[in-house]
Amino acid sequence: MIVLATRNQGKIAELRDILAEAGLTRPLVGLEDYPEIGEIPETGLTFTENALIKAHAVAKATGLPAIADDSGLCVDALNGMPGVFSARWSGVHGDDKANLDLLLAQIGDVPDEHRAAHFACAAALALPDGTERVAEGRLEGRVIRAPRGTGGFGYDPILVPDGDTRTTAELTPEEKNAISHRGRAFRALAPQIATLLT
Amino acid sequence: MIVLATRNQGKIAELRDILAEAGLTRPLVGLEDYPEIGEIPETGLTFTENALIKAHAVAKATGLPAIADDSGLCVDALNGMPGVFSARWSGVHGDDKANLDLLLAQIGDVPDEHRAAHFACAAALALPDGTERVAEGRLEGRVIRAPRGTGGFGYDPILVPDGDTRTTAELTPEEKNAISHRGRAFRALAPQIATLLT
Repeated sequence: MIVLATRNQGKIAELRDILAEAGLTRPLVGLEDYPEIGEIPETGLTFTENALIKAHAVAKATGLPAIADDSGLCVDALNGMPGVFSARWSGVHGDDKANLDLLLAQIGDVPDEHRAAHFACAAALALPDGTERVAEGRLEGRVIRAPRGTGGFGYDPILVPDGDTRTTAELTPEEKNAISHRGRAFRALAPQIATLLT
Repeated sequence: MIVLATRNQGKIAELRDILAEAGLTRPLVGLEDYPEIGEIPETGLTFTENALIKAHAVAKATGLPAIADDSGLCVDALNGMPGVFSARWSGVHGDDKANLDLLLAQIGDVPDEHRAAHFACAAALALPDGTERVAEGRLEGRVIRAPRGTGGFGYDPILVPDGDTRTTAELTPEEKNAISHRGRAFRALAPQIATLLT
């Protein structure tokens, strides 16, 4: 069994799909089965630092291999922010709508040609003995002016990937996983998970 | 007469003091005397771009020499943001308390050793004929965890300059002007203003 270090149901669903497609057949459980594990402070200054902090904390607490990710939206006009602050951009952790509305208001005056952005993800595996592996993935695009679509979570309704006209919230889960930052990071990590856990 | 391209009373008072100390004796008026000049969109990606945009717009509209500045708080942990977005960080332009509260919430988990920040200012002069001059100034410090002090405006209550224990909102106007980003930028610009306008 592998523990996914998140209580975000949207993320758990995505990771199950991505890892199953990558051939990982071990059962996966989310943190909802471990109510005794409290909030893990994301004090890192990079996605990789935070992913490793979470994976190690959960591997240690559960005695099981743990997978974590940290991801976010990096907006060029905001020097790469919200970045590691994506989930708490509005000051309230996990309020997707408040975070997204704030971001749109902040860059309201930024013209279309300066609205490039990318989703970034660091995916980490940690074992109870301290072994760790990490991989990164990106999805380049641009931030539009009003949310569109109901799929995904977080900033999905406002990012249009390069070469597409739909937001990532307007893609099917399969389409999104095929190109997403999280898909790319976990597909890069999956062979390392398989090697370590066989 | 020189027009100061701002309606911010706190900024007008500061600039009068700074420019008078720098020996500039021409009468200064703020935009409150020019209600016909609407909001000037700050579409630049740098303080210098925005200061020049505002100075040129006001010089053109009034037919008088115009002085403008753009300034803000650059937080290392936020990759230099809020930066040019400082006055609209909360999504509402000019709500000092909302901007400051949001910033403190965003970096609430950032440990003390990573809370370095600086105030930055670009000061610009533009003449109706298109002549322009610009100068920059900085004040290095760190962001504390709760506001202190009633002086100044903007983010003054949360920045403690290096070498001090008080926030810039706890300094006297004279103390603040002597070290501030705006003081430094306008003292660097003042001789150029004097040369051009004599």
